[in-house]
Parts: sequence; structure tokens; C-alpha cells
Amino acid sequence: MPQTGQLAPAADEKLTEGRLIVRGADRPGVVSTVSNILLEAGANIVSLDQYSTDPSGGRFFQRTVFHVRDLDAMQPVLEEKLATHVGAGLGLDWRLVDTSRRKRVAIFASRAEHCLVELLWRQRRGELDVDIVMVVSNHRDVEEVVRAFDVPFHHVPVVGGDKAAAEREHLRLLQGEVDFIVLARYMQILSGEFIRDVQVPVINIHHSFLPAFVGAGPYQKAKLRGVKLIGATAHYVTEDLDEGPIIEQGVERVTHGDSVAELQRRGADVERAVLARAVAWHSEDRVIRDGNTTIVFAP
Amino acid sequence: MPQTGQLAPAADEKLTEGRLIVRGADRPGVVSTVSNILLEAGANIVSLDQYSTDPSGGRFFQRTVFHVRDLDAMQPVLEEKLATHVGAGLGLDWRLVDTSRRKRVAIFASRAEHCLVELLWRQRRGELDVDIVMVVSNHRDVEEVVRAFDVPFHHVPVVGGDKAAAEREHLRLLQGEVDFIVLARYMQILSGEFIRDVQVPVINIHHSFLPAFVGAGPYQKAKLRGVKLIGATAHYVTEDLDEGPIIEQGVERVTHGDSVAELQRRGADVERAVLARAVAWHSEDRVIRDGNTTIVFAP
Amino acid sequence: MPQTGQLAPAADEKLTEGRLIVRGADRPGVVSTVSNILLEAGANIVSLDQYSTDPSGGRFFQRTVFHVRDLDAMQPVLEEKLATHVGAGLGLDWRLVDTSRRKRVAIFASRAEHCLVELLWRQRRGELDVDIVMVVSNHRDVEEVVRAFDVPFHHVPVVGGDKAAAEREHLRLLQGEVDFIVLARYMQILSGEFIRDVQVPVINIHHSFLPAFVGAGPYQKAKLRGVKLIGATAHYVTEDLDEGPIIEQGVERVTHGDSVAELQRRGADVERAVLARAVAWHSEDRVIRDGNTTIVFAP
Amino acid sequence: MPQTGQLAPAADEKLTEGRLIVRGADRPGVVSTVSNILLEAGANIVSLDQYSTDPSGGRFFQRTVFHVRDLDAMQPVLEEKLATHVGAGLGLDWRLVDTSRRKRVAIFASRAEHCLVELLWRQRRGELDVDIVMVVSNHRDVEEVVRAFDVPFHHVPVVGGDKAAAEREHLRLLQGEVDFIVLARYMQILSGEFIRDVQVPVINIHHSFLPAFVGAGPYQKAKLRGVKLIGATAHYVTEDLDEGPIIEQGVERVTHGDSVAELQRRGADVERAVLARAVAWHSEDRVIRDGNTTIVFAP
Repeated sequence: MPQTGQLAPAADEKLTEGRLIVRGADRPGVVSTVSNILLEAGANIVSLDQYSTDPSGGRFFQRTVFHVRDLDAMQPVLEEKLATHVGAGLGLDWRLVDTSRRKRVAIFASRAEHCLVELLWRQRRGELDVDIVMVVSNHRDVEEVVRAFDVPFHHVPVVGGDKAAAEREHLRLLQGEVDFIVLARYMQILSGEFIRDVQVPVINIHHSFLPAFVGAGPYQKAKLRGVKLIGATAHYVTEDLDEGPIIEQGVERVTHGDSVAELQRRGADVERAVLARAVAWHSEDRVIRDGNTTIVFAP
Repeated sequence: MPQTGQLAPAADEKLTEGRLIVRGADRPGVVSTVSNILLEAGANIVSLDQYSTDPSGGRFFQRTVFHVRDLDAMQPVLEEKLATHVGAGLGLDWRLVDTSRRKRVAIFASRAEHCLVELLWRQRRGELDVDIVMVVSNHRDVEEVVRAFDVPFHHVPVVGGDKAAAEREHLRLLQGEVDFIVLARYMQILSGEFIRDVQVPVINIHHSFLPAFVGAGPYQKAKLRGVKLIGATAHYVTEDLDEGPIIEQGVERVTHGDSVAELQRRGADVERAVLARAVAWHSEDRVIRDGNTTIVFAP
Repeated sequence: MPQTGQLAPAADEKLTEGRLIVRGADRPGVVSTVSNILLEAGANIVSLDQYSTDPSGGRFFQRTVFHVRDLDAMQPVLEEKLATHVGAGLGLDWRLVDTSRRKRVAIFASRAEHCLVELLWRQRRGELDVDIVMVVSNHRDVEEVVRAFDVPFHHVPVVGGDKAAAEREHLRLLQGEVDFIVLARYMQILSGEFIRDVQVPVINIHHSFLPAFVGAGPYQKAKLRGVKLIGATAHYVTEDLDEGPIIEQGVERVTHGDSVAELQRRGADVERAVLARAVAWHSEDRVIRDGNTTIVFAP
Repeated sequence: MPQTGQLAPAADEKLTEGRLIVRGADRPGVVSTVSNILLEAGANIVSLDQYSTDPSGGRFFQRTVFHVRDLDAMQPVLEEKLATHVGAGLGLDWRLVDTSRRKRVAIFASRAEHCLVELLWRQRRGELDVDIVMVVSNHRDVEEVVRAFDVPFHHVPVVGGDKAAAEREHLRLLQGEVDFIVLARYMQILSGEFIRDVQVPVINIHHSFLPAFVGAGPYQKAKLRGVKLIGATAHYVTEDLDEGPIIEQGVERVTHGDSVAELQRRGADVERAVLARAVAWHSEDRVIRDGNTTIVFAP
């Protein structure tokens, strides 16, 4: 029978917060197993999101946020039990996150500053729970604005078309320093090798239309078809650049009266809003990748 | 330790589905207690939404959907355990719903048909999981359209201003027949006595503006201030008619070019969309009332 | 110098309303020429929308709504002046519409009723200023609902794959009877011959995604990429079916929790809203085609 | 008869752009009169928006953008004709604007920077066609961020509750220097005397809810009713602070999961977007005030 009556922590003890992400083939007893492990650790579940693609034979996803007296001390015990009962016992992937350790992010940018400034500014306001450890750019256009936010700036140009050399420099700068990367309108295509070697998730933002306009000059093409909505998509980068799992999307209405330049400006507004949401949700472990799709437990 | 390895139901058995709603003062162990009760009953959780206003000393809300072999047979056992461990043990309100029993609804309307037709049509399409057992109106304007949907129509006029007589007739028609009532632009104010005596939730839809325009002719007043958005709010009716807990809201953009009649038309479009969502969510037990607020586990 | 002081019509005379659409290469004096012609006819401009892609060497579009004492009597005089000064003089296309003559429309449908019912219902409510003269379908599924609205229904099945025979029957039914056609989820591709021969505009609605998912099963593909928005596009049909000039678009948010069936249901909601707006705007001559784009003077 | 065949300006001449705003009691011949005056001046109309509340006896509004060879030189002639034929002849208000002279704006702020930074940043990006000539604040919190944009900052505290002294200082700073004022979350109520004496339009932004929650702590009250939408309204300030004519509005969805702090954060996002649009539209003379309403010829 379930235990109840667990005592609440004394008022003078500092509560710590953890997040537990569980993912895998659905089977009976997962919620029960996880909540019993937390209960035995004296943790109090403060938020639980769960999603199953199909009760029998589908995929299972759970994000649990809990408060506990001293996560640092508890972590080895918790991890041992999760490994035994959730990992080995139920055959599921799991990940335990101490929310007091903010994720470290590198932002890649080129010449356009709109997405970059949005992230720098929201981080300073306390709306993005990350540390921006560096901005990397193949141009110097955004250097001044980055330094005004007291964030390290690295200029890594692609010299003589040698993208491989630039990517080696990127890897050297990033190694062990970041938990994820954001491409904030970075206009270089990352190589498949880089994406494999960097070993952290990479988030990209790009414009989106209904219908899609492929190739060069999409805003021009959209204008010529009379589109009434323009949008943006934030997604994880896979080796197939614009085809990774989608994190978030947005649109804005436009009219025949918008010039191509105005379409681009409105597109920029959607891009910065959508990217900011995607980065916030990723940093709070609200986005679970599963193959080429995502489960997003948005707030 | 949690039990695992529960067998999945054999393929030839018919799965039944239940919903469990839990609400009350938050305390450690609730998720664990509930999931263990379901696990012991051989149930598989297919969806779980949980929300806590504050981990220590706040309010707790949980909606769990589960599949089980034969809910009819299991129900007494489940209810006994819920009463013991969730009700008495944890001091929480709980409610168990067999989803194969559709909620029965009465729709009240007056002359305007837009909200009424939206509900009748969505129900026929299979988008609202309810039985519309009757339409009640103080006018005959909508009678024909209701009959075209094969739904019983009751004309209950307010004769000589005797609203009490009309409400007695309403109570006679509704007694034991419905699980909730929808006011689909019903233009009579319900008395406090009726709301108490009817003993089922009543959902209302009304127009909303930013800012609010109180009193008669709100569209005219909105026009005179140059409002750019008009909206609608679906809420539970309390004795203070337009002040009950909000279920859902929506808005639509308008311009100076919209006449008062066009504002009303656009308002009607928002009303039918918002009311349809509110009715769908209520019928699926996605809306939990708590004092004058709501927790809405929207899909 | 401009003439002023034109007398307003006497109160006992019935005002008639006209719309004048002008389109062509931009050049100085167009607005002046048009407004002088109307002024001389005693007309009062009640609404004027004008758009120019580029002041020098661009394209010019104007929609003017005016009130005049007796448009029937004035029409020959007005048309003669427009032909001389706007057509021959300025080299522009022009079109004069008596708004008391409602446009006649044929709706083509297949099995899905959501778009069809939306149009029938809005027309009955007085929100679409058209006469629905017939509904044509290759199935009988929607026959009953159409007859309930007192609209003629024609069943024109494609027998043995002989689409040409069906299209001949369509042309026979439509000839001289309609001003435009709406494909309300009509699931047959119209031949290029039909589109040429029918000689009236054809409006289509289809689902849209960001990004686009081409080929069969788009909702399934969208689900597998984790899309967060689904949309719909209303456009004029050209021989390249889904590539004609866009009239209107809309989107709705979806989540990972929406099944493929629910994505389709939400898609249906967007489709009916977008198609209703497109049909309303076309019927009020608010949509001007120009090559493969549209100018939409939305209200 | 209208003149046509006006020659386009020679390619080597610099085109200048003007805007003409006309407002007043509707009567026949206004469009014609205005366009003839422009035609005679060799101007080419590039954009014309017109709106009439009621063709007979209503209010008339027109915004015309035109290109002309040398507006500086033409202006006296144009103004004389407008005064004679539009002002005296037709009894209408009119205003001629040389678009090469950017409007000068002062921004008032307090401690919150979100609206202020949005305006500074969009202006730097070239998205707001204004000169920000000063930022005035009753606190020093935003001083550093303002100086980073090279904009003069004036600290005008309210000392010992002497608001009148602060307002005298405001008037001294503003006199002759600005074309309009933006209150970007300026938390002091302006006196009626100040609003009269400053003699330029003042734009304010404030949060809006459906329904309205009056008095202190509106976000807290909204939370307690379970609101699902929060919004913002940009309006002209009249002596009745939050009741002036509305320029623009926006909303964002919220859920029960948003804390009061998160509601405020989302409210801040809507505020900056709505205020940026309002300032852009005002600066381009797209907003015409008429009594307590507005005509907004949005792009």
C-alpha cells in the first residue's frame, strides 16, 4: 500500500528542486514506480506532465519536477534507484537534473542581430534560465552589442572557404563549456561532422511559409503568390539542416501592402519570439526529443 | 518497492477507460498513492495531468485517464480504495468517471442560433462527447433548426413576467435528466434559487471586451472607443451571473471599418468557437473548479 | 478646378450602390480621373481602397464603393465614360458592379460536409452576400443536409473513371447560371479544359503546413515531425491545382497530444473559417487577381 | 473632364514624398477635390486610404501618400489650394506632412525597461521612423541602457510628492522639442494641466484584461478568476487617463499554470509589441483621432 503522511521539510531547511525526465516504451507501472522512488526520497512532486502515444505498445514520456531537502546529498541514492528500477527494471531512458545548475549555452550569430539581442536581453531580465557563456560569429557586426551585455565574443571567420578550420576552432571553444548551442540566424551550414562531434543539442530558427517556398529568395516568392501569413520554426539541427524535430512555431499576418523588406521585418519579429520560447523550453527540459518528433510540455 | 511487470491485457479483452479527478490541499505522496491504487487494479495510465499551486501548503489537482480490463466490475473496488486512501487518508476530493457513459446536456437558447447550431453540429459530427437530451427556449425561433437535428425541443416562455413559473418548469424538465446545462445565448438571467436547485454545473457564454463596457449596448460603446479586439468568455454560472470561474476565452481583431452590426457578427463567431471548446473540455472532465478559479487541462 | 457643392440626394429617393474595380499599370491621375467621373454622375464615394506596387512603373489597384441615385439608369453613361477615360484613356482594366445583384455561386463538395455547411449556414444568416444556386457532389453523403437548406443538389458521380463525362455534365449545369464556383473539399482534380471552359473564377481550400508536407498523408507526416501549427489556404484554382493566387490563410496551434485524427479535426476548423472569409471577400469584389498574386482589400 | 497624361518625373530628379490627412463631415466631391489638387501639382498618389462612417451625414477620413518632384518648393502652393478648396470650400480639417522630416519623440519611463528598450532598439534598426530626442524618467534605473543607445537621458524625480514641480521641468525640457510623447510604462499620472499645456499627443500603454479588473493588483485578481487571455492597450492620453481613444490592442494566451509573476511577464511581452505598433503607426500618420475614437489605416 502506498505510504502517506510524509512529513513536510522543516521551515529552516533550504528546499532544492530537481527534474526527472523519463522516456521509452510504454508499460504499466511507470508512473507508480517513479512516484514511489521520489516518495521514499522524501521528495514532493510539484509538477508532473505525462504523455503516452498509445497505451498499449506506444511511447511514454514523463517530466516530473520535485522539491526535496538536499538534492546534492540525495542524488547518488536517487540515481541508483532510478538505474535499477526505471532503467534496468522498466527498460526506460531517464535523466535527473538539478535545477540549481543553469544550462550553459553558446549562441552563434552572423550579421543579423534581432534573434541574438532578444536572447541576450531576455537572459538579462531573468526570463531565460541559462548562462550565455559565449557568442560566436563569422562577422564582427554584432561584437559591440554582445560586449555591452558583458558576454564573451569570439570572431571565427570562414577564411578562404575553409569551413573545416572554422569548425575546428568552434569545437575547441565549445569543448566541455556548453550544454547546448543556439543558431541565432547563423548563416553557415554546419557540417555533419560538426553536429556529431559537438555532442550537445543545437537549436536553429528559420523562416517558414504556408506553402513552403524552397530555394533562394523565399520572401520574394511568397510575395509573388500573395501569401497572407509568414512564420518561423525553431527546431533541433540534424544533419539534414532544416528537417530536424520541431520545437516551436509561430506566424504573423501580412497583406499585399507589405513589401518584401516588410515581410522580412515581420518575419524577424516572429523568429525572435519563436526562438526565445524554444530556448526557454529547452533550458527547462520541457522538450523531449523522440526520433524526429518532439514532446513539448509547454508551460 | 514499486511493483512492475504487470501484464498487459490479453488482446481479446475489451479495454474500458476511466478518468480520475483528484483535488485538495497539496501534500507529499498523492501521485504515488493514486498511481499505486491504479497499478494494483491492473490499470494502465494513459494520460496524467497534475498541477500544484504551491508545493508546500498549496492546492493540488490531478486528472488521470487510465485503461483497465473491465471498469464496471472494478469500480466498487477502486472506489473503496480511493475513499480509504485518497479521501479519508489524504483528505482529498476525488471523482471516478466511466468514459463510456456520455454526459447528458440540456442547451438553453433564446432567439440567436449561432451558439446552439455550433453545438448541435459538432455533436452530430462526433466532436462533442455528449448526449444533447433537450433544447429549452423562451422563444420558438430556433425550434425548426433543433428538430432538424432530431433533438427534443421545449418551449418554456416567460409569461407575464413570471420567471419563477418558467424556472419551475425548467426544473421539472431537467430533474435527473442532465449532467450539465449550457446557456447558448439564453437571454434570461437565472435566479439564485434555480442555480442552487438545479444541482448541475451551468456554463454560460458572453461577449468580452478590453476594456470592459458595462451596461446596455456594449458593442456600440466599444465602437465609440475604437476597440481593436472583441472577445468572448465561457464561464460557470454562479449567482453573480457574469462573474463565475472562467473556462475559456477568445478574441478576434476588428477595425474602425467594422460597423456595430459587423462587430456583433464577429463577436458571434468568437462566441461559438469559445463555447464549443468550453463544452468539449467540460464534458471530458478537463476543467476543475476550485473556488472562483479553474484548472483547465486543455488537450 | 474640382467641382464641389454637389447636392446630396433627396431623402425620398432610393440610393443604389455600385462598386468600381480598376487595375493596371500605374500612372498619374488615375484617382482623379475616376473620382471626377463619379462626381459628375452625382455619386458619393463611401469607401475607397487603393494600392500601388510602385509609384513609378508599378501596378495600380483601386476598389471604390459609391452611392448614387439610380445606378440602373446611370450605368450606360458611367460605363461609356469609364470606357473612354479609364479604359482607352489610361489603358486600365475596369469593372463596374451593381451591388444589388448578388453573385451566384455553385458549391462543389464530396463527402466531408464541414466547409459546405459553414457556407450554407452563413449564407442563410445573411453573412454571405451570394445566392447559392446549386450544390454539386460526386457522392450522395451531403444530399440531405443540402436539401435542409432548400438548395438544389446535383449528384454527378464519376462513373468508371470517366471524369470527362462528369465535367461535361458540370458545364451543362453551370452554363450561364453562376458567377463563381467554390470547391468546398471537392476531392476530384479539375481538368485544365474544365477550368478554361467554365469561364468563371474557381475558389479552392486546402490544408497548409509549415513546413509543407507533400504527397499523401500530410497530417501523418506533420505528426511525425512534431508540427505545432496547422493551417489552411484558400486560393483561386489555376491549371496547377494547388498553386494559384492565395486569397486567405489561417492557422491553429496543435500539440504533441493531438492525434492524427485530431489534427484533421482542427484542420477542418481552420478550413471552414478561411474558406468563409475567402468567399465573403470574393463576393464583395475585395479580391483583385493580378498574375499569380492577389490584392485583398479586407474589411 | 479630368486631365490625364501627366508626365512622370525625369529619372534624374529626386522624388519627395508627402502625406495628406483630411478629416471632417462627409460630403460629395472630397476625393475628387483632393486628387485634382494633387494632380495639378504634378503629384502621383502612391497610397490612398479612405473611410466614411456613413455616406450621408457621416464623418469622412482620408490619408493620401503622394510623390512629387520638390515638395519643399510646392508646399506653399499646395497649402494655399488645400486651405481654399478643402478647408474653406468643403469645411474639412487637413494636414500636410513632409515625410522627410521625421517626427521627434520623447519617451517617459520609470523602472520597467521592457517597453523602452523595445522602442530604442526598433528605432536603431530603422523600424521606427522617428527621432528619439530624449528619455525622461523619475528614476535612474534605465539611465545606463538609454545612454548605451546614445539617447539623452533626463532624470526628473518627483521630490517630496511635488508633482507640479516635476511637470514644470518636463514642460521646460519638451517645449518646442517634440512632436509627440510616449509613456513607456511611466508610472506617474499626468495632470490635466500638463496634458493641456504640452500641446502634443501623448501615447500610453497599459495592461488589459477580459473582463477588466479594476483597482490595485489586477494580475492577482485575474489569476483568481482563472483568466485565459491577458492583453495590452495603446491609447492616446486624455485627462481621464485610461479612457482615451484606442490605437492598438493585443492579447496572449495564459493558463492556470502561469503564476502571477509569469502573467506579468507575458503581459510585458504584449505591451512592448502593442506599443511598438502604436508608435510606428502614429509616426506614419496612420492614426486619425476623431472625438474619443480612432481611425487606424494600418499597413
